[in-house]
Amino acid sequence: MAPQYAPSLRSRLAPLLLILQTGFIIIAALCFENKETNKPDRKSFFHFYPEFQDVNVMMILGFGFLCTFPVRYGFSGSGFNLLVAIIATQWALILNGLDSWYNTKIIRIDLKSIVKAELCAVSALISIGSVLGKTNPVQLTLIALLEVTGFALNEWLLQTLLKVQPPNSIMLLHVFGALFGLMLTWILYRDGSKQGFEKETFDKKSGLFSMLGAVFLWMFWPSFNSVLVGDDQTRLEAVCSTYLSLAVSAVTAAALAVLSSPRGKFNPIQMQSCILAGGAAVGVSVSVVQQPWEAMALGFTAAILSTLGYRYLKTHLLIAFECHDTCSVLSTHGLPGLLGWLAQLVLQIKYCDDHTVAVRFAVFHICTLFITVSLSLSMGIITAFLVKWTFWRPQQNKKCFDDQAFWEFPNLVVRK
Amino acid sequence: MAPQYAPSLRSRLAPLLLILQTGFIIIAALCFENKETNKPDRKSFFHFYPEFQDVNVMMILGFGFLCTFPVRYGFSGSGFNLLVAIIATQWALILNGLDSWYNTKIIRIDLKSIVKAELCAVSALISIGSVLGKTNPVQLTLIALLEVTGFALNEWLLQTLLKVQPPNSIMLLHVFGALFGLMLTWILYRDGSKQGFEKETFDKKSGLFSMLGAVFLWMFWPSFNSVLVGDDQTRLEAVCSTYLSLAVSAVTAAALAVLSSPRGKFNPIQMQSCILAGGAAVGVSVSVVQQPWEAMALGFTAAILSTLGYRYLKTHLLIAFECHDTCSVLSTHGLPGLLGWLAQLVLQIKYCDDHTVAVRFAVFHICTLFITVSLSLSMGIITAFLVKWTFWRPQQNKKCFDDQAFWEFPNLVVRK
Amino acid sequence: MAPQYAPSLRSRLAPLLLILQTGFIIIAALCFENKETNKPDRKSFFHFYPEFQDVNVMMILGFGFLCTFPVRYGFSGSGFNLLVAIIATQWALILNGLDSWYNTKIIRIDLKSIVKAELCAVSALISIGSVLGKTNPVQLTLIALLEVTGFALNEWLLQTLLKVQPPNSIMLLHVFGALFGLMLTWILYRDGSKQGFEKETFDKKSGLFSMLGAVFLWMFWPSFNSVLVGDDQTRLEAVCSTYLSLAVSAVTAAALAVLSSPRGKFNPIQMQSCILAGGAAVGVSVSVVQQPWEAMALGFTAAILSTLGYRYLKTHLLIAFECHDTCSVLSTHGLPGLLGWLAQLVLQIKYCDDHTVAVRFAVFHICTLFITVSLSLSMGIITAFLVKWTFWRPQQNKKCFDDQAFWEFPNLVVRK
Repeated sequence: MAPQYAPSLRSRLAPLLLILQTGFIIIAALCFENKETNKPDRKSFFHFYPEFQDVNVMMILGFGFLCTFPVRYGFSGSGFNLLVAIIATQWALILNGLDSWYNTKIIRIDLKSIVKAELCAVSALISIGSVLGKTNPVQLTLIALLEVTGFALNEWLLQTLLKVQPPNSIMLLHVFGALFGLMLTWILYRDGSKQGFEKETFDKKSGLFSMLGAVFLWMFWPSFNSVLVGDDQTRLEAVCSTYLSLAVSAVTAAALAVLSSPRGKFNPIQMQSCILAGGAAVGVSVSVVQQPWEAMALGFTAAILSTLGYRYLKTHLLIAFECHDTCSVLSTHGLPGLLGWLAQLVLQIKYCDDHTVAVRFAVFHICTLFITVSLSLSMGIITAFLVKWTFWRPQQNKKCFDDQAFWEFPNLVVRK
Repeated sequence: MAPQYAPSLRSRLAPLLLILQTGFIIIAALCFENKETNKPDRKSFFHFYPEFQDVNVMMILGFGFLCTFPVRYGFSGSGFNLLVAIIATQWALILNGLDSWYNTKIIRIDLKSIVKAELCAVSALISIGSVLGKTNPVQLTLIALLEVTGFALNEWLLQTLLKVQPPNSIMLLHVFGALFGLMLTWILYRDGSKQGFEKETFDKKSGLFSMLGAVFLWMFWPSFNSVLVGDDQTRLEAVCSTYLSLAVSAVTAAALAVLSSPRGKFNPIQMQSCILAGGAAVGVSVSVVQQPWEAMALGFTAAILSTLGYRYLKTHLLIAFECHDTCSVLSTHGLPGLLGWLAQLVLQIKYCDDHTVAVRFAVFHICTLFITVSLSLSMGIITAFLVKWTFWRPQQNKKCFDDQAFWEFPNLVVRK
Repeated sequence: MAPQYAPSLRSRLAPLLLILQTGFIIIAALCFENKETNKPDRKSFFHFYPEFQDVNVMMILGFGFLCTFPVRYGFSGSGFNLLVAIIATQWALILNGLDSWYNTKIIRIDLKSIVKAELCAVSALISIGSVLGKTNPVQLTLIALLEVTGFALNEWLLQTLLKVQPPNSIMLLHVFGALFGLMLTWILYRDGSKQGFEKETFDKKSGLFSMLGAVFLWMFWPSFNSVLVGDDQTRLEAVCSTYLSLAVSAVTAAALAVLSSPRGKFNPIQMQSCILAGGAAVGVSVSVVQQPWEAMALGFTAAILSTLGYRYLKTHLLIAFECHDTCSVLSTHGLPGLLGWLAQLVLQIKYCDDHTVAVRFAVFHICTLFITVSLSLSMGIITAFLVKWTFWRPQQNKKCFDDQAFWEFPNLVVRK
């Protein structure tokens, strides 16, 4: 008979985390530098700080509490998200700084580099959404490290080979994260998925915690899309576009939820994922969306795509491809991200007067997507095979979506 | 026998939302303009953005989670609030821009216009608090559209006829929203109200979610009152006044809660509504409250009024007038708003040296209130009769305060 | 037989709060002044406001919801925290202004003075964490008043006698609050503590609310440490240092939690307290931590100390010294605070070239700690004896950690 308890992580997780953290501190002691030299830019601290905190809230609270919907997985959902987010951020700080380290032997740490690292970490959080509840924290840590490596590599390739501007390349995190996650969950498929895991349910209270996370993501998404945009005017446009797009996608998602349900009811989890579609779509195309109606139309289309993805594609993926996407990252981030990519292509061509330039841009833009997709798919497959190794002690099917596997509840009583 | 299920909204809500949203996008395509022309004001983005986000958080999270206290109404409370808020905001964006559209054929979209639209939407959210749990989302959407129309009309009247300054006229949203809501709930009275609805209860967890909303409203109210104030110095004063007033009203509300309870205990829902009284009172009179003690005294009086309103007036309204005010918007927003109006009158007269000017101001100020009150009452009655129509498929009494009427919980298990 | 109900607070709490609040308003009418005179500093409003709000959120939401983990103590945890925080803030506003009142007969109220008062109030909130669940709101109010008085006295002594800079002296709030709280809970020891109170448990939902509070504290701690730092450049360094330190302490706390648990599991309450250790440690030493790796190493050490304190010292204190520290403030704030003090000493000496200056600084620094520790211990003992008086009607042991003692739940049904 199978053991009753989930395997202990004491001999796996603790050394892994301690080695990683000590390594990070040693690297920091050798390379990190806190001082900002460019005094004229000093003012930007105050301009930047509120958006920095908004992104921080989205990463830790938004994504964390979005993952608390499984009824017995609240601590894991929010706690592991925090753990993974900060490991990924530290790792991304180092990877993003490699370039400057190569030139100056110094990695400068300031708000901008931290925000950039956080955005890379978000791409890892998206991937992790697809395997939520079916992996242990050791696996999650490894996934995060490899995902961030892949994403940083992708960014470097895009910026070096195709001269893609930094905000544009970073915003592909939605596509990269979603496809990476899809490969993960495809290869890490567990037999129990088709029947549904015993504890993969939600109740009203856990659903409300998840609502809280969704609402924070919804509210602060304008900061997420505008934080790396350089120019003040463009930043303001990014904020307004994202706001309008999110508003439209929330209304549209509600309408479609009612329409696609036989009894005309809302599905809480579907709503929480589909109202966010507009944010991802505008994020990817933020540099070319100028008019409010373009952002609104994008939000409208994104919500339609996302709802279709949630209602039909997700089930299809599970049944036909054995690909069990817990947080439906494909429909929340993947499809809207691809839509944003398409919108960018269309709008850029529309604004082009010259036919040659337009064709050249199209080729260049298709290459961008091609590199991103192939890198995310291949890195996802490699990572998944590494993580599948039983050395990492994955929990049994019965212990999926169960806090009890990783958290102490001595009869739910703490004696302190 | 009555049907067991709440009537399906598929044929009502989905078309309504889709038509509205398509309409908004078409209007946006014709009129909205994102560009800011006045370059010198460009800096204000960074000055404005944090307060914009605070107001956003209050509208979506604060009001949304404040409405989650009924034990089985959490998804509806927070979800419908989001839906209504964004429809109302979009509609208010259009209505507020009509004036500039008439002149320039363009409605400019920037942070300021979005914040202004959000404040109009808040007046709709206040109204909706009074009929929470007893209306379906179709009705809520209609109420929001008509309330915002009425409020925009009121603002236009005040600014055109009486030359009221914009921040002063907008802050009357507390009075307008509360009286509008009162009329709604009076005419939409259901027979079950007097005995109390089966599910109109709260438990400890739903009460804590509601506490979360109340706390966010309490914390960010200084931004709410100061966001539209033009001058920097005045804005700082508005922030400090609101902070002190809220602090005093929270302490006073706690004292009175204990005093008015026979067994000397706090009532959670009463506390959540009465600690906010000071914010509404200072909001209405923000342009004349200058000294800290004035703000504190205002907070003190507002908390007393609000507690009396909650403990005695609310029951009286229900029994004598058949007016069932779910979120007690009268005592949270209505009475403190009226107090703020009175405080503005008294302080303005106190600062006047000239007797004639004082009398003239008093007449003008009384007219302001008169227009607001009569417009809100009449619009409320009209809206209520429209919404009462059974074509909108209101739920049965048994399905009041019940998420199950609108949300899918397939045995509380999601198979994905 | 003992009475079944907790004693009513009607005749104690209501008069106390009303007298306090009326007193504060009278003092405000006599001394408070809202006007800012120094026009050149006017711009700072916008630079200051976001961090002001972050501190506000930490104080009200962070500390409040951190205290909601006992399963039946959610309303009291968050509600009493709000009550105590605002009374303490108002009292601290007056005490901090005494100095300027002595010179100019005016206490100026602006964002800076409110933030300073809030930080003093936080030291009271820390103390109260140690007696959470075992005291009634009357006692909590008294504790807060006396703690803030003691803390303000300590600050005045340090600034007058030893010329300690304001941010440095204020950041000792972690040490002061923790030791004060320890004395409180030692003298207010109840016989039931060793066996554990019947209701001192947590469940998954109350634990998630507490997680929410912890996450807010974690996210906004950089604002907490940087808000009073004057120079822009130093402020940026404070933000980055705190961020890195918190990140490291969260990873380390997770690793040690797994390592110190026999079955390799996380303990939710332990995690929530230990991930914050890095913030307190860097806070105390914020003026000298310059390099990222120093902050990270500090976070690493703080997490180790805090975990050891939580796992071993806490139990030891309870068994050997009859000192029942509910929120384990010693390991969350006390030990990391002391570590920060030590780090400041070491780093300052390291940067000193001159031997004499170093020794002089060491003596001065040890005196700072000595004054703080002796004042907090003595004030804590005095306060505890005052509060122990049965005139304040403490609840019975059976009613500890029970909302029902102070909050109305008429069969959990509200008829409104």
